[in-house]
Amino acid sequence: MAKIRVVDYLVDRLKELSITDVFGLPGDYNFDIVEAVEKNDDINWIGCTNELNAGYAADGYARIKGYGALVTTYGVGELSAINAIAGCYAESVPVVKIVGIPTTKNIQNNTILHHNFANPDYRAFEKAYSNVVEATAYLNEQNAKEEIDRVISVLINTKKPVYIAIPIDVCSVYVENAPIIEIKKSDENNLDLALDHITRLINKSIKPVVVADVLVERFDAKKELKMFLENTQIPATTFLMGKGLLNWGYDRFIGTYIGKYDNETTYDYVNSSDCVITIGAIYSDLNTFGFDVGFNPTDMIDIECDYTIVENVRYENILMKDVLSALSQMQYLDKQKLPYRELSFKVQSVDCEETLTADYIYPELQEFLKEEDIIFSETGIIKFGFAPMKLPLGANLYNQVLWGSIGWATAAAFGAGIAAKDKRVILMTGEGSHQLTAQEVSSMMRYGLKPIIIVLNNAGYTIERVLSKDPLDPFNDIAKWNYSKLPLVFDGDVWVGQAKTNYEFNEVLLNAEIQQKEKLCYIEIFTDKMDLPKLTRMIIDNKLVKKEANIK
Amino acid sequence: MAKIRVVDYLVDRLKELSITDVFGLPGDYNFDIVEAVEKNDDINWIGCTNELNAGYAADGYARIKGYGALVTTYGVGELSAINAIAGCYAESVPVVKIVGIPTTKNIQNNTILHHNFANPDYRAFEKAYSNVVEATAYLNEQNAKEEIDRVISVLINTKKPVYIAIPIDVCSVYVENAPIIEIKKSDENNLDLALDHITRLINKSIKPVVVADVLVERFDAKKELKMFLENTQIPATTFLMGKGLLNWGYDRFIGTYIGKYDNETTYDYVNSSDCVITIGAIYSDLNTFGFDVGFNPTDMIDIECDYTIVENVRYENILMKDVLSALSQMQYLDKQKLPYRELSFKVQSVDCEETLTADYIYPELQEFLKEEDIIFSETGIIKFGFAPMKLPLGANLYNQVLWGSIGWATAAAFGAGIAAKDKRVILMTGEGSHQLTAQEVSSMMRYGLKPIIIVLNNAGYTIERVLSKDPLDPFNDIAKWNYSKLPLVFDGDVWVGQAKTNYEFNEVLLNAEIQQKEKLCYIEIFTDKMDLPKLTRMIIDNKLVKKEANIK
Repeated sequence: MAKIRVVDYLVDRLKELSITDVFGLPGDYNFDIVEAVEKNDDINWIGCTNELNAGYAADGYARIKGYGALVTTYGVGELSAINAIAGCYAESVPVVKIVGIPTTKNIQNNTILHHNFANPDYRAFEKAYSNVVEATAYLNEQNAKEEIDRVISVLINTKKPVYIAIPIDVCSVYVENAPIIEIKKSDENNLDLALDHITRLINKSIKPVVVADVLVERFDAKKELKMFLENTQIPATTFLMGKGLLNWGYDRFIGTYIGKYDNETTYDYVNSSDCVITIGAIYSDLNTFGFDVGFNPTDMIDIECDYTIVENVRYENILMKDVLSALSQMQYLDKQKLPYRELSFKVQSVDCEETLTADYIYPELQEFLKEEDIIFSETGIIKFGFAPMKLPLGANLYNQVLWGSIGWATAAAFGAGIAAKDKRVILMTGEGSHQLTAQEVSSMMRYGLKPIIIVLNNAGYTIERVLSKDPLDPFNDIAKWNYSKLPLVFDGDVWVGQAKTNYEFNEVLLNAEIQQKEKLCYIEIFTDKMDLPKLTRMIIDNKLVKKEANIK
Repeated sequence: MAKIRVVDYLVDRLKELSITDVFGLPGDYNFDIVEAVEKNDDINWIGCTNELNAGYAADGYARIKGYGALVTTYGVGELSAINAIAGCYAESVPVVKIVGIPTTKNIQNNTILHHNFANPDYRAFEKAYSNVVEATAYLNEQNAKEEIDRVISVLINTKKPVYIAIPIDVCSVYVENAPIIEIKKSDENNLDLALDHITRLINKSIKPVVVADVLVERFDAKKELKMFLENTQIPATTFLMGKGLLNWGYDRFIGTYIGKYDNETTYDYVNSSDCVITIGAIYSDLNTFGFDVGFNPTDMIDIECDYTIVENVRYENILMKDVLSALSQMQYLDKQKLPYRELSFKVQSVDCEETLTADYIYPELQEFLKEEDIIFSETGIIKFGFAPMKLPLGANLYNQVLWGSIGWATAAAFGAGIAAKDKRVILMTGEGSHQLTAQEVSSMMRYGLKPIIIVLNNAGYTIERVLSKDPLDPFNDIAKWNYSKLPLVFDGDVWVGQAKTNYEFNEVLLNAEIQQKEKLCYIEIFTDKMDLPKLTRMIIDNKLVKKEANIK
């Protein structure tokens, strides 16, 4: 049997996952890992400015390409990235977190080395990580191959991040080059039972509807969902996190399910259904717009990653992909008349000189977007701006709705740009969030990416002004930056725009569309500190009125 | 008994620790905590650009003022800061890490909220933190007061960070305003036994010497150390982390113990002593310059935070402060002749037009420093530049020698500036490290601080070029920045300088000395990518020769 070095064996596993770019920072405990990446012709080392950003970039990359990888050094590096990996765990983004650690001898001797404690605990950081990943592996000479196989299997089967720690000396140990990756398969018997139950329920229902969400994408079941819907013509919606999932031109798409505040026809259609088929949904506070869900999924049909519940009967060990694939063969044709749908923003009547507001920004952005665009929107008020938007065919919106770590979008958009160099990447972030991770714009320029970055400068943490007792409480203020000067600090060709009025906003978008072909576009737009997207205003209605009284 | 809200009770405990400034970022789970800080007249809220930086700032603040505090939001915020708190744990910097978490009801119901997992584990982040702090407290209505008392006691007694999680609703619960903080006291009997043993050993020794280190400062025993030394006149040195400790003009200070590579007289004096008295020392790889310690501390006298070892007999539960205080009364007067000492860099013969090198930079910085200066030096090659330097009276050098997290110095210097507004703060950082946390310069300007920031631009991670196989390996390159433009992105009055030659370096220092009185000074200096301080060259001597061959 051919033998191979542990690091090369691991890099080969990453390549099998279609990972062609690995994010991270070098450090004296991980040189052998970084070199193994760099020296492999099929995979690139992508240096980042700090480890949290590198983790976000690996997350953004994995959302596009299916899997991602991050390499950091011991202690300092890995802990700096832990929030990014916890976000991957929350939102089921499969990222392999790899860390280079001191030699086995130093571990055994409990040597007091840099990046450790004066009273060392060599497992401390693995233990910290064990709370935010699905599996950890702490390699040694004996277990290296089997442990890599085990956690890569977990990664693939659960779509959750995993953690691998490699002592310096173990990097160069030779192991059998015979991977055994165990991919979960459906239990055929349970699958038959579930399918029978599902088809019976759909056939006897009057008004079935599909609610699909982001985990369909993560569990690689988009194609099967499409086949199922096209075959049955069952009307379908998505939650916010799954926005973009049904964006192939399905003409029985009934719009995004964003609670009772907007798009009421979708809300009413779903809530009056006698057979809601939920697929890969996340029932978090913000994804459901305040738990505003008018049905109980387990009462009807709930198809999840590796189990399905039908009328509260749970069928274990059946994969979403297999269930949907089988359902695409079922005999059923939905002929329900669909409700009148207002799926998109209306075109604005423009007053050019008016100060820019959210009411103008998002409808104009809707017109600006193109097919296949990749859009990263930051958390905070911006996600509410995008929620009701109609996306062009094949365009997809990425947002960290559940984990909601501010600063994520800037660095994640960098990772997405590396993953999809042939597509247009658009990042929209609030300036409060942007401050956390703004240095990663320099990495975009270093690697020749040409995203369009829109920084919304509204003088502080607006979402927190909305939520806190006093909107003008100074803790919601932030350091003032001249954002339009930031790209000049970095090295590369860049087009910079600013807009304070509707007219100027149209101008910068027009310019960006041209300039983006050649260079990164960095656009700063200004609104009032309490300007909000309509959906946010509706949600916080009563509370906000009180707040506005405070401002005066 | 008077009652008080939990958050106000906690803020009062911080005030008792002389904390007048709390660092952090607001979030919707911590509003009540931030408000309690903000509304208290004796304590200020200091908003930072991200949580890792806020953690570093609290660390830098605590190194100056004794204690620090950091407030973040749940999940995303706290995990982003965990590396900073782990650094505090490693280096015994007592910081109170406070996090606002969801309501007790949501915790009990396991509600799927933002900043949590789709399958929530409400203790996950506390569990992660439990690996990097001395104690955690997860408050509820019943235990809030006692748990705050308990962890604040741990903080004071161990000088290690502690973690406090407060559910939103618990913030406003009223508790007895009767703190019970248990401060450890010395066991009088053990203290007598140890003192007897120590004085016998010193009295029968021929050549006693004190090796003091950073934990003397942390355990607040500087004054007692000074009394002990002035009384006995025992010659004394420090390790690198303790540099500055004996900097009050002690004329039997024999220079810093930096191994055999430099300052050999100190090295030889200590290693030939028959009675080495070590006090609060950290024996890590870099603090000992590669474990180059020519004595075994426990064979002689080792005075630690709460125990002392004399000739391998361990006396438990006696505080460093009490041991030193008692020793300051002992009858002993050292009259050993001290060795010839070359304690500082020699003055350079200047060739103005020469390209700037480390050999010029550090001796000139030595001359530039003033009494009482606070100097933050980044890890990497810079710490080796400062190691042999003679500091002016009362000046202190802060460096994260054990934990060694790059980026720390920039944000920690911000915290130090808040802690010591009356002193001059000087930050020297490599540009590779600076990229990780550079946004915190905007916080310095926001709060009107006027540090002198020196950014060493040597085109990449130079310490890693030194340590990795090939110094020109691309993974040691970084994104190019025009550092001198960075302060222009931020808001405030700033003086910017650049230097590529010796002459220019002198000019920018002269200018900075004047300008610093009015504004922040930001100086970019350039050296060759393989230019190293002499001490670094000596340490890696043979290895480096090989590397230089690679470069050509």
